[in-house]
Amino acid sequence: MKDQAAAVLESIRTQQPLIHCLTNGVVKNFTANALLALGAAPAMVEDPSEASEFAALASGLLVNVGTLDEPQIRAMRAAIDTANFTSKPWVLDPVAVGPITIRTHFAREIAAKTPTIIRGNASEIIALSGNQSQGRGVDSGDSAEAALGAAKSLIESGAKAALITGPIDYATDGQSQISCSNGHPLLTRVTGVGCAQGAVAAACAACSEDPLVAATAAALIVAIAGEIAAEKADRPGSFQIAFLDALDALDPETLITRAQIT
Amino acid sequence: MKDQAAAVLESIRTQQPLIHCLTNGVVKNFTANALLALGAAPAMVEDPSEASEFAALASGLLVNVGTLDEPQIRAMRAAIDTANFTSKPWVLDPVAVGPITIRTHFAREIAAKTPTIIRGNASEIIALSGNQSQGRGVDSGDSAEAALGAAKSLIESGAKAALITGPIDYATDGQSQISCSNGHPLLTRVTGVGCAQGAVAAACAACSEDPLVAATAAALIVAIAGEIAAEKADRPGSFQIAFLDALDALDPETLITRAQIT
Amino acid sequence: MKDQAAAVLESIRTQQPLIHCLTNGVVKNFTANALLALGAAPAMVEDPSEASEFAALASGLLVNVGTLDEPQIRAMRAAIDTANFTSKPWVLDPVAVGPITIRTHFAREIAAKTPTIIRGNASEIIALSGNQSQGRGVDSGDSAEAALGAAKSLIESGAKAALITGPIDYATDGQSQISCSNGHPLLTRVTGVGCAQGAVAAACAACSEDPLVAATAAALIVAIAGEIAAEKADRPGSFQIAFLDALDALDPETLITRAQIT
Repeated sequence: MKDQAAAVLESIRTQQPLIHCLTNGVVKNFTANALLALGAAPAMVEDPSEASEFAALASGLLVNVGTLDEPQIRAMRAAIDTANFTSKPWVLDPVAVGPITIRTHFAREIAAKTPTIIRGNASEIIALSGNQSQGRGVDSGDSAEAALGAAKSLIESGAKAALITGPIDYATDGQSQISCSNGHPLLTRVTGVGCAQGAVAAACAACSEDPLVAATAAALIVAIAGEIAAEKADRPGSFQIAFLDALDALDPETLITRAQIT
Repeated sequence: MKDQAAAVLESIRTQQPLIHCLTNGVVKNFTANALLALGAAPAMVEDPSEASEFAALASGLLVNVGTLDEPQIRAMRAAIDTANFTSKPWVLDPVAVGPITIRTHFAREIAAKTPTIIRGNASEIIALSGNQSQGRGVDSGDSAEAALGAAKSLIESGAKAALITGPIDYATDGQSQISCSNGHPLLTRVTGVGCAQGAVAAACAACSEDPLVAATAAALIVAIAGEIAAEKADRPGSFQIAFLDALDALDPETLITRAQIT
Repeated sequence: MKDQAAAVLESIRTQQPLIHCLTNGVVKNFTANALLALGAAPAMVEDPSEASEFAALASGLLVNVGTLDEPQIRAMRAAIDTANFTSKPWVLDPVAVGPITIRTHFAREIAAKTPTIIRGNASEIIALSGNQSQGRGVDSGDSAEAALGAAKSLIESGAKAALITGPIDYATDGQSQISCSNGHPLLTRVTGVGCAQGAVAAACAACSEDPLVAATAAALIVAIAGEIAAEKADRPGSFQIAFLDALDALDPETLITRAQIT
């Protein structure tokens, strides 16, 4: 699995997949810079009609409900339909699903539209599956382990894989299960790292046939870049910059050497 | 007052208040990172219906009219009503009120809805109170001293405290008045420092019963973090990063030692 | 021409022009920080009614269609009309025009409303002029040289000057033509550098009577700041910060010394 994840990173560098991001207003800039640093190409096209058109041109789609509003809901429905129709991978990030009603209903609606990967923390994954969660906004009150059952039920309902993030990340396609214990606490002190990981997962899915491999690669890339950044910067402002530099510097060999997965 | 402000900082670190930010599109990312660096938790929930629901879950609310539009006006009205109904503190930042009509009318409407703190530069505070100001966009053409009368009239109309920012900051609850002469010119060379201060003020108000203490703490935290950052970085790009690092590093003792208030 | 471009930089520092930016959601923060670092003042006012009012207060206007939606289209039309009525310079940045329908129609509509400068990569300029381009999202598949004919036809239709960006940038007013070979590949690895250049071009146009001089100054300022930044930072995260610092540090003498134009 380490070798397969490293091959995905290699492919991103050569193919430079164009990733269409329908994401929240807080993290658009950081998400675009993370994709550029990694070697992919970002594009944010928001108008519902343009989003439908553009999803066909892109290699992958990210749908992140963090600052959902009515026009964005229409853009997301349109882009997802195009992605599915043109067989492009797409990632669902159910930010803060659970405590807030509209996004919870909408995220459940689109979770059934066969996303390639659903990426979220434990509370979001549990709430998305219809169970009771302990989430508070974007923070998780549940453990990633506890969310594995919820992930399985989301996969039964149409998702191809899930990436559950936390101190230990879990990737699963319903059959196999990979845990990744890389990472660093500073990753939680910069806004949008998780959201950027959703975009990274879309880039990985654009460069891999296997959703489980793509989810694992996304977990490893972000967690290991975070470890490398934390060796250079010990506070959140400078860590954010070091993280982007580390995404740029990360090579397949380093990924294989550092990966702690089972 | 220095000890009380330091105690607010201490409380933010232990309570990690969740701050709901309805703010402008230019500064969402920086505001979220400033709150995270300080030890609070940011959340931006923009849909009018979701904003109403989420304001009840948060510990404090920021309303910043910098890029106001019609849907945001509805979200702000709904969130303010919820905050008032659930007795949560909220901060009004009347960005560029004065030269522009719609936001001026709207900010005057909500300034009467008992905000815990109104934070603005002198021109914004004067214009909000209904007097003639010298503002140009987000820049102030008036002195903070000149705005103290306007602040007093806003407090008579319902606000609990005001923070008037400038080379010297003034906090007042209509009875007492605190001036803070900390700070650094580079704080005006990074977009969104003032807007982030509004979010910091909401975090302070979530951790203090006394609006004047919260306003003073917000003034000191931003000004002293700016001083510390300016010791490490002398140009605006690197200063922005050093400022976030300084928010993370700031401890109550340093705040007490450096505070220049009367 | 080098001296004239340096004089524009000098004027920005003394006049601090207020630039009204109607731009895309990915780059608002970076654009504002780039203008502040350069010595100009940014303002993003988005509501259609406010945008019309504010365009009269500003010294220059940027219209960037990167994340166009229906309300922004109305704000742009209103702001452009005000800018033209009050004889303020304005810059059109036709981001990703070509592969996407709505923005292509809209950008063609406003390209006829006498923009002071149209700034784009070769594919965008070619597509805007009505010819077939090779663009993919925000990336150009065409050479800047190939776009010079398209720029000429846009100028015949009302634009006063064009700035075509690429490894070599070209500025033209339809009569004269300037090429600038400054720059660095890292400038393409940070999101929003091109978009920020549109805002810089608006600041230059606010400080120069001659659109060709303003376009050339915008090309030189961004390209030379990029060169200086690349001497301090070799990866995209730290380069982004070094670029802002370099905009702040850039002085007219350095611009003249480093400028490679013909």
